[in-house]
Amino acid sequence: MGDTSSILAEAAVTGPAAAGSVEAGSVGSAHGYTSDKDAYLRRLRRIEGQVRGIARMVEEDKYCIDILTQVAAINKALHAVSLGLVQDHMSHCVVGAARESERTGNPEIVQAKVQEAADAIGRLLR
Amino acid sequence: MGDTSSILAEAAVTGPAAAGSVEAGSVGSAHGYTSDKDAYLRRLRRIEGQVRGIARMVEEDKYCIDILTQVAAINKALHAVSLGLVQDHMSHCVVGAARESERTGNPEIVQAKVQEAADAIGRLLR
Amino acid sequence: MGDTSSILAEAAVTGPAAAGSVEAGSVGSAHGYTSDKDAYLRRLRRIEGQVRGIARMVEEDKYCIDILTQVAAINKALHAVSLGLVQDHMSHCVVGAARESERTGNPEIVQAKVQEAADAIGRLLR
Amino acid sequence: MGDTSSILAEAAVTGPAAAGSVEAGSVGSAHGYTSDKDAYLRRLRRIEGQVRGIARMVEEDKYCIDILTQVAAINKALHAVSLGLVQDHMSHCVVGAARESERTGNPEIVQAKVQEAADAIGRLLR
Repeated sequence: MGDTSSILAEAAVTGPAAAGSVEAGSVGSAHGYTSDKDAYLRRLRRIEGQVRGIARMVEEDKYCIDILTQVAAINKALHAVSLGLVQDHMSHCVVGAARESERTGNPEIVQAKVQEAADAIGRLLR
Repeated sequence: MGDTSSILAEAAVTGPAAAGSVEAGSVGSAHGYTSDKDAYLRRLRRIEGQVRGIARMVEEDKYCIDILTQVAAINKALHAVSLGLVQDHMSHCVVGAARESERTGNPEIVQAKVQEAADAIGRLLR
Repeated sequence: MGDTSSILAEAAVTGPAAAGSVEAGSVGSAHGYTSDKDAYLRRLRRIEGQVRGIARMVEEDKYCIDILTQVAAINKALHAVSLGLVQDHMSHCVVGAARESERTGNPEIVQAKVQEAADAIGRLLR
Repeated sequence: MGDTSSILAEAAVTGPAAAGSVEAGSVGSAHGYTSDKDAYLRRLRRIEGQVRGIARMVEEDKYCIDILTQVAAINKALHAVSLGLVQDHMSHCVVGAARESERTGNPEIVQAKVQEAADAIGRLLR
């Protein structure tokens, strides 16, 4: 089960900075995360593999505590992804809306974006 | 601010809207939450009382599961407070920085605020 | 102890276990945490102080991000308390019930305790 | 994107009872979850599909908030799996150790299992 250790090693690397970075000009991209698309896809593929790894552990009757340790690692990896998305949302959608509302004088655009972001964060905090 | 009491009543049900509201111009107030200060103070006093209630339960040898239920209730109340603060931070500090960076042409101001917010959210997600 | 019931009434929004607990009639040192009572009380008093500290920060218009950092610290402290209670519950109530069910041949006693613990943990995980 | 709604529908059904049940005699099976093996595998395969669904959303430049909603749904599904595993661990490993320690007079066996379970729960609480 050599890949378990690598799964754990990957989990330790997590952190928001890995996925989300504030970018000034994402030309022609609909959303904040688009510029980091490949990074997100790589991370999601790794998480997918981690889930499959847990299924394998269940199939092979591995010890429940060891499976729980892997579930905790996936939780962490998912948190990192969601934090990256939140940061991208703020630095693109919220900031973009703030500028638009500054130009148009309409505060509702940014209010809606902030509310949306807060709702999403609330779902992550549960 | 007559709707504050209803906001507090809603606090148990949690929801981002409960504490934070997007405000366009909070003149003369340092931070986003300042306008909701009384609401935050009431909520924090209630949480303080809940913590004291748990101490009393421990003193009186109450059943551990009942104490755990109360701890979960405090967790929820704290989440609601922190979500309100996050929302206030976004609608004031981040949005304010976005406007300032728009005026000054310096993107770094808003980048720093977004990073700070993301770090804070990351600590809440743990 | 009128205010404990009101605390419980508040908690009624959050969890069902608050109302009915599976206690048979535990005389004396009923629960696992009793031996650590002083340690729990110290920790809870500290958490109470932390909550009061946050209220002070709000009153003094401290920066929202700094307040959020303190909220995250309380979350952590509460997690430690709840984890301690869960562990005490397992090593006393669940284990005690396991032994009793072994003696009596009735598996239901331990099943109820395990279910109760799982429900409590589920509320902590949210 | 018709499967998004079904993903959300599934997420709403989550709950510990779905995966973990206290069982009296799982003869010849190493661990608590073995009897529910198929249920766990089904749930993990569904989570794997949800992760793949998120990757697809990223590829198709879906709105970040919608992706975050899906991540929150996976978090919930993983919590349900981990809670089931914790419950199975308690009702099998902890209870089994309690009985063994009752027979052998050695309390260390059960203490180790409880510690292990508490550590695993702590990692889930983060």
